[in-house]
Amino acid sequence: MNNAYSTAAYRLYDEKADFDKKAQGIAVGLTVGSWTELPEAAKQQMQRHLGQVVNVDVHEPVNGAPGERYADITVAYPDVNFSRDLPALLVTTFGKLSMDGRIKLIDLQPSSDFLGAFPGPKFGIKGVRDLLGVYDRPLVMSIFKSVIGHELQGLREQFLQQALGGVDLIKDDEILFENPLTPLEQRVKVCMDAAREAEQTTGQKLIYFTNLTGSTFKLKENAKRAIDAGANGLLFNVIAYGFDALAELAADPGINVPIAAHPAMAGALYPSQHYGIAAPLLLGKLIRIAGADLSLFPSPYGSVVMPKEENLGVMEALLTDALPQKPVFPVPSAGIHPGLVPLIMSDFGPEVVVNAGGGVHGHPGGAAAGGRAFRQAVDAVRHGKTLESYSENHPELRIAIERWGVRTS
Amino acid sequence: MNNAYSTAAYRLYDEKADFDKKAQGIAVGLTVGSWTELPEAAKQQMQRHLGQVVNVDVHEPVNGAPGERYADITVAYPDVNFSRDLPALLVTTFGKLSMDGRIKLIDLQPSSDFLGAFPGPKFGIKGVRDLLGVYDRPLVMSIFKSVIGHELQGLREQFLQQALGGVDLIKDDEILFENPLTPLEQRVKVCMDAAREAEQTTGQKLIYFTNLTGSTFKLKENAKRAIDAGANGLLFNVIAYGFDALAELAADPGINVPIAAHPAMAGALYPSQHYGIAAPLLLGKLIRIAGADLSLFPSPYGSVVMPKEENLGVMEALLTDALPQKPVFPVPSAGIHPGLVPLIMSDFGPEVVVNAGGGVHGHPGGAAAGGRAFRQAVDAVRHGKTLESYSENHPELRIAIERWGVRTS
Repeated sequence: MNNAYSTAAYRLYDEKADFDKKAQGIAVGLTVGSWTELPEAAKQQMQRHLGQVVNVDVHEPVNGAPGERYADITVAYPDVNFSRDLPALLVTTFGKLSMDGRIKLIDLQPSSDFLGAFPGPKFGIKGVRDLLGVYDRPLVMSIFKSVIGHELQGLREQFLQQALGGVDLIKDDEILFENPLTPLEQRVKVCMDAAREAEQTTGQKLIYFTNLTGSTFKLKENAKRAIDAGANGLLFNVIAYGFDALAELAADPGINVPIAAHPAMAGALYPSQHYGIAAPLLLGKLIRIAGADLSLFPSPYGSVVMPKEENLGVMEALLTDALPQKPVFPVPSAGIHPGLVPLIMSDFGPEVVVNAGGGVHGHPGGAAAGGRAFRQAVDAVRHGKTLESYSENHPELRIAIERWGVRTS
Repeated sequence: MNNAYSTAAYRLYDEKADFDKKAQGIAVGLTVGSWTELPEAAKQQMQRHLGQVVNVDVHEPVNGAPGERYADITVAYPDVNFSRDLPALLVTTFGKLSMDGRIKLIDLQPSSDFLGAFPGPKFGIKGVRDLLGVYDRPLVMSIFKSVIGHELQGLREQFLQQALGGVDLIKDDEILFENPLTPLEQRVKVCMDAAREAEQTTGQKLIYFTNLTGSTFKLKENAKRAIDAGANGLLFNVIAYGFDALAELAADPGINVPIAAHPAMAGALYPSQHYGIAAPLLLGKLIRIAGADLSLFPSPYGSVVMPKEENLGVMEALLTDALPQKPVFPVPSAGIHPGLVPLIMSDFGPEVVVNAGGGVHGHPGGAAAGGRAFRQAVDAVRHGKTLESYSENHPELRIAIERWGVRTS
């Protein structure tokens, strides 16, 4: 092999297929189209464009045991066949093939050359920590309780209450679009104003992730409008717009604020056993290559669930040293309350964002108390205390664990 | 209800859920966020933003019979909550919800007001027929046999042979990206030159769908470069770039050529019973609203299959009078040979594109003979003849049905 290859790993279910033949069919069919019938001269010319089967690992169900027959197949695609963008990589490796039977795209391992075309996150974990000046604990993020139908003043008050609780990050709801009640620039202004007001009390910096929406070809313009109005973070529904849009936003030097990738619509792609794109690739590796600084995904703890094994796969892809792009904050989301913090910190380690909506706003003492309860829970773990013992002197945490309990596994 | 609503229909699988409660949770959770605990004054303000459950149809498995418990749920979302773009509609109706259990998005019925924001296909079926001057038969499309690794001269020769067979449409392979051997503008020039050469023999017009690729924010520029070089059609991998990119390309007055939407990656979304987006919505209705003039999808006949019922659902969405956007050509693809033409015309009616790759290039007489065989098969059906009888005086068709047979069901 005298040029670079990017590999794709698939899991293919079939009761009786010849998986070796199938793998060869993929390697040829998705590259040069045909091979065996080519004249020798053409083969010489085409060799560098021909896909290569790297591995075929067949799993036969054991007699009598439940389970399906499948194969894990890895195919290497010559980089020379596609341009240095994510649609080209995805369409090459899982375009037509996605429709060819029960097949799931498990992983992509782009070549160093391909990866080199992606600057990735501008900030990453360290950059976000630098912006906040917080290095010694997981970050805490909160989400507006409800945003649709609210006016600017109501939004400001919600923002202020969350900020007063000492959270580090606040994000828009992903379903808040451009609207007459809280248009982008005015929303940014009142929220950042509330952030400054809270900072006078908390002494803490805060990043506000404004939802970046609208037509695809105006995303850059809208991002810059938000930034000009004072936004210091952007939320982006990457699945609806495609990974390339994220990659180009992240690579734009004018968009100099962190981007949080929201997984809206990802559930159409990752949960099926037989179809789609595995969560660690979809919400981990691709998000990181494309350049988000934070990646939200369904936690394994709450009502919107992803199995813990997949969650940890997403985390691994966001944090591993094996990629040249900066590591990205994992943000396991949905159903998070303060009583889960020890478990989250045990499962994810120190580089995680504890993200809550109902767990902040549902606190009997209000959103500010809710934020404090989360910060206290984080401090308890840092100081090696149980939540129960720490809560003796921290009333917000005590009320939270009375409300939601403590989950240890 | 004093304002417009767009509805979404879901199929939700659960062994024991209270589906009515679940539907209410969707209607509230994806709109105003909370309802029962709101004060009366707030309810008045929020009423116009509140989602409404339209229908809950529970399917209990009959005792002893196989089958899963599920419900078909329809929820109406106030248009006032989201902007007039497809990411906003999709993120609202199936953003977070896509990750909430075993749930598939079956259909969307946007309001007239929402639909009014989408001009849809510039050409549609009638417009494409006008360009070609062909009104009395299905169109025939062929695909390059292989494109990667070929030089301009090789591509031109492949194009010419296909064109000489009398096909109406020729499309790039969807995995042909910008590359040094056949860069966009030169590719367009040599192929359109071959089209003119063939026209002198066939007397027939031809549309060449050049693959539109590259970075998202340069798609318009690349489309216009292709058109300036003479391209009279574009192929677009809509799933990789998102529906909004297609909608904006189709709405651009400077992109005045038909667009064929390719379903690459769609298999990650539609085939699962429990997750994703149903094919008639994904490859039918959304493609039409977004404005492609042709929609390719896996035929129910060949190796890459979609069940016939779903195929006909896609067709219905592309053709129905119930949408204001122009009807779109259905292009059932993969595994098509001349012996399938009577079945395709019986299943799809006259407004269909017969699309083949291997069925053209694999003809023992070459690609030109392959194209002729398809045209002859179409003529046979139009004249009420069987392929067998018509082939007596049409040697290309005879050789094709000797090779592939005739399939009648």
